[in-house]
Amino acid sequence: MGALDEGHFNGELENGVKLINLEVCDEEEVEATAAIEGAVKVLLQGLGEDVNREGLKKTPLRVAKALREGTKGYRQKAKDIVQSALFPEAGLDSGVGYAGGTGGLVIVRDIDLFSYCESCLLPFQVKCHVGYIPSGQRVVGLSKLSRVAEVFARRLQEPRRLAEEICSALDSGIKPAGVAVVLQCWHIQFPEADRNCFSQIHHPSEMNMQGWSKVSVRFGLGLFANEGSEAWGDFLALLKFRGVNVEKNHTKYPTSHHWCPFRSLDAPSCNGHASTHIPLNGRTPSRTGPSQPAMVAAVAMILNSLGEDPSRKEFVSTPRHFVQWLTKFRRPNMDMKLNGFDFDQFKPRLQKNMNDVDNSILDQGELQSELNIPFWSLCEHHLLPFHGVIHIGYFQAKGAEPVERSRLQSIAHFHGWKLQVQERLSRQIMETVAMIFGEDVMVVVEASHTCMVSRGIEKVGTSTATIATMGRFSTDPTAKAMFLQTVSDCTASGG
Amino acid sequence: MGALDEGHFNGELENGVKLINLEVCDEEEVEATAAIEGAVKVLLQGLGEDVNREGLKKTPLRVAKALREGTKGYRQKAKDIVQSALFPEAGLDSGVGYAGGTGGLVIVRDIDLFSYCESCLLPFQVKCHVGYIPSGQRVVGLSKLSRVAEVFARRLQEPRRLAEEICSALDSGIKPAGVAVVLQCWHIQFPEADRNCFSQIHHPSEMNMQGWSKVSVRFGLGLFANEGSEAWGDFLALLKFRGVNVEKNHTKYPTSHHWCPFRSLDAPSCNGHASTHIPLNGRTPSRTGPSQPAMVAAVAMILNSLGEDPSRKEFVSTPRHFVQWLTKFRRPNMDMKLNGFDFDQFKPRLQKNMNDVDNSILDQGELQSELNIPFWSLCEHHLLPFHGVIHIGYFQAKGAEPVERSRLQSIAHFHGWKLQVQERLSRQIMETVAMIFGEDVMVVVEASHTCMVSRGIEKVGTSTATIATMGRFSTDPTAKAMFLQTVSDCTASGG
Repeated sequence: MGALDEGHFNGELENGVKLINLEVCDEEEVEATAAIEGAVKVLLQGLGEDVNREGLKKTPLRVAKALREGTKGYRQKAKDIVQSALFPEAGLDSGVGYAGGTGGLVIVRDIDLFSYCESCLLPFQVKCHVGYIPSGQRVVGLSKLSRVAEVFARRLQEPRRLAEEICSALDSGIKPAGVAVVLQCWHIQFPEADRNCFSQIHHPSEMNMQGWSKVSVRFGLGLFANEGSEAWGDFLALLKFRGVNVEKNHTKYPTSHHWCPFRSLDAPSCNGHASTHIPLNGRTPSRTGPSQPAMVAAVAMILNSLGEDPSRKEFVSTPRHFVQWLTKFRRPNMDMKLNGFDFDQFKPRLQKNMNDVDNSILDQGELQSELNIPFWSLCEHHLLPFHGVIHIGYFQAKGAEPVERSRLQSIAHFHGWKLQVQERLSRQIMETVAMIFGEDVMVVVEASHTCMVSRGIEKVGTSTATIATMGRFSTDPTAKAMFLQTVSDCTASGG
Repeated sequence: MGALDEGHFNGELENGVKLINLEVCDEEEVEATAAIEGAVKVLLQGLGEDVNREGLKKTPLRVAKALREGTKGYRQKAKDIVQSALFPEAGLDSGVGYAGGTGGLVIVRDIDLFSYCESCLLPFQVKCHVGYIPSGQRVVGLSKLSRVAEVFARRLQEPRRLAEEICSALDSGIKPAGVAVVLQCWHIQFPEADRNCFSQIHHPSEMNMQGWSKVSVRFGLGLFANEGSEAWGDFLALLKFRGVNVEKNHTKYPTSHHWCPFRSLDAPSCNGHASTHIPLNGRTPSRTGPSQPAMVAAVAMILNSLGEDPSRKEFVSTPRHFVQWLTKFRRPNMDMKLNGFDFDQFKPRLQKNMNDVDNSILDQGELQSELNIPFWSLCEHHLLPFHGVIHIGYFQAKGAEPVERSRLQSIAHFHGWKLQVQERLSRQIMETVAMIFGEDVMVVVEASHTCMVSRGIEKVGTSTATIATMGRFSTDPTAKAMFLQTVSDCTASGG
């Protein structure tokens, strides 16, 4: 067990903090980060954005650091992690080694991870379950199973390969009688800006990832080589104790990575950049920024700076997919027509001082609410998606028809499909609703931010909420409280 | 907004990876780590352990690094974190600044954290909710709310002070119209080795932390200074959307830290080390190791090495509490009597080769199972508790009385109350049950390990499971499967 003595201050193995070889890392880090920064600037310009505007100034650096951090598994060695925590475990000193070997199955369940999809460069979420059967009196520190899984998750991946790599690393590190990995993976769908697609999105509190592309994969070696083996039976039984039913969810899918929804967008006769440019319903692409091929080349350079070979067959379409995704959030013209609304007709109203409105009329109105309107947007600080639901409350004169939900949904789309921050989104939706339908508006936006999970923060399960109020909702706490109660009632009942 | 340009490669602010000032940190780190290592060796020896045995060799280093990592908040500046991500957010360019200021309430919910209790040095779990109302067009990157909370969580804390410090840091960093923090905190109870106490422990899959000491605290500044304010009404309403009902759970507790269960152990007339030594039911303390005062002094030195002043009033009893806790896990004499069992009487059986047993008799037996037997233990690799439930299955000759649950509980206690690893615990319980009641035994241990959460791994919600089998359960897959199904049925129905 000489391995136990090595690396006294090799902090990376224990706490994830690097304490050695920092001079070397620094130089490589600076170079790779700078290269990615440059590429991200090209992408932002390709979206028609001003890279010098306040919210975007540091975005290229943020994206670069997040990507490097999110793929640091390329620069970590799983073997070191395992070997620093192998313990001889002989059983009772009295020698009743009756059970044979070191004992039975050992598993760690529900390890939350994220990884980056090699087909589209977007992060995907992973629930990882690892098990092994010790042999030769070797057991490994339980947290190392999680650490090793993370090394391979922090690379550009595809679920089956991820499972295989974790398994193989543990197999060669621990030399167990058998080792197995079960992964449940969730990938963001490729949302279209039409209503039908959004029926998949649910209130973030549900956290059931409905509407996400999901696969379960499993892989095993040694006693787990055969999927019908007794060892697998034990493993799956222990997962069932926690409500994880892999047999039922287990999806057989080909080794090619068709689980990524972006793959299905590939035109059948796709070659080169043929299907790169998919303009969003009616939006005209920017004429001033870099061309699509330049954006695709920039993403290829990012792959390179992460330590991958962009010409590897898995990556051939990746830059194009990522650009397709980004292009969805191209800065729209503000005077465009939005699903039948002509914003120009509201411009005079936009200039009006809304404080002039006679509030006595509004007091006669009735509280209307439209809840759980789904939306997607792109965080302008990290170029990562955030999504969730919007609740809109407004007062309407008696007898008037309530606003159609589809119109509110259109407004949410209009402000969502661009580089955004949630605070601004809430305000913009509120102000647009006010322009069109009246001055007493309240908007609550509830969202999950991919950037809270996938860049070193890793706070799985957090959600954000923002409130924006105008008119009566600003001045009358009772009106605001009434609307919040309406949302609460609806949410509590599973709405 | 000059702050936006500072610290181009100050990686700590964005990704938690330090890239600067490493030479300085290194020296301090090495010194502090070495000091803690020395202190942990004293503690281990005080528990009667051999610090050179295989499983403990690296424990002092592991504990030292975990504690330094877990208290790195002392060496971080919240102000830098906030100021690196302040964004001017003026609202719509068209100037419809109707809502006043930058908009309404912004909150981040369900941030999972852990912290260290200043009264006993054990980690406690935190669910943190942060909100603020922007002012002067200043909004902060959403993930920074989580980052700042973490800076103060990674210190020795007490819930109310933690909430106050997070709040104050955000207040001075963002200068908002108001800022508020709600914390839900769970502290491990001080378990006694009698059965009654253990009725609090539940299957780890419930994750409802029943049986833990829980407090909810809230603190606010600016518009949140008054607990009955409109701003608080909005915040609490948004928490309700996610099922967090703070009003109901809100516990008023005095500013002194009586929430820590270890405080209640202080003798009323406690002075100095009067109540330090609490031997565990019948266990005789080691006579060879360091004295209790030496152990208490060692813990005081650890506090010092974490950057705290052990003479601060909050820390006066902390070393004693931690030693009290540790002493619970003092290595017992193997020949002690265990709640009425005399192990000596089973020694001859222990020596017997169990393979000689006539299995034809056992085939007549009936599967018995005793499920969800609670246990506590101490991870010998990290000196942190792990706990959960044990399921025991065995075959018993027809007509014989089933084993009393209390006896199995005693065996779980006997093997749990010491420095352990889960794999060994499973095997030792199995072998003891076999010695006493028969050779066909299967044990499943399900546990939550504090060390998986509180030392940089931070995988909240993971759980481990281990299987150990003997006799018929080793040779007959049907028997094993039958028992696993029994556990599954019981677990699924909420047992």
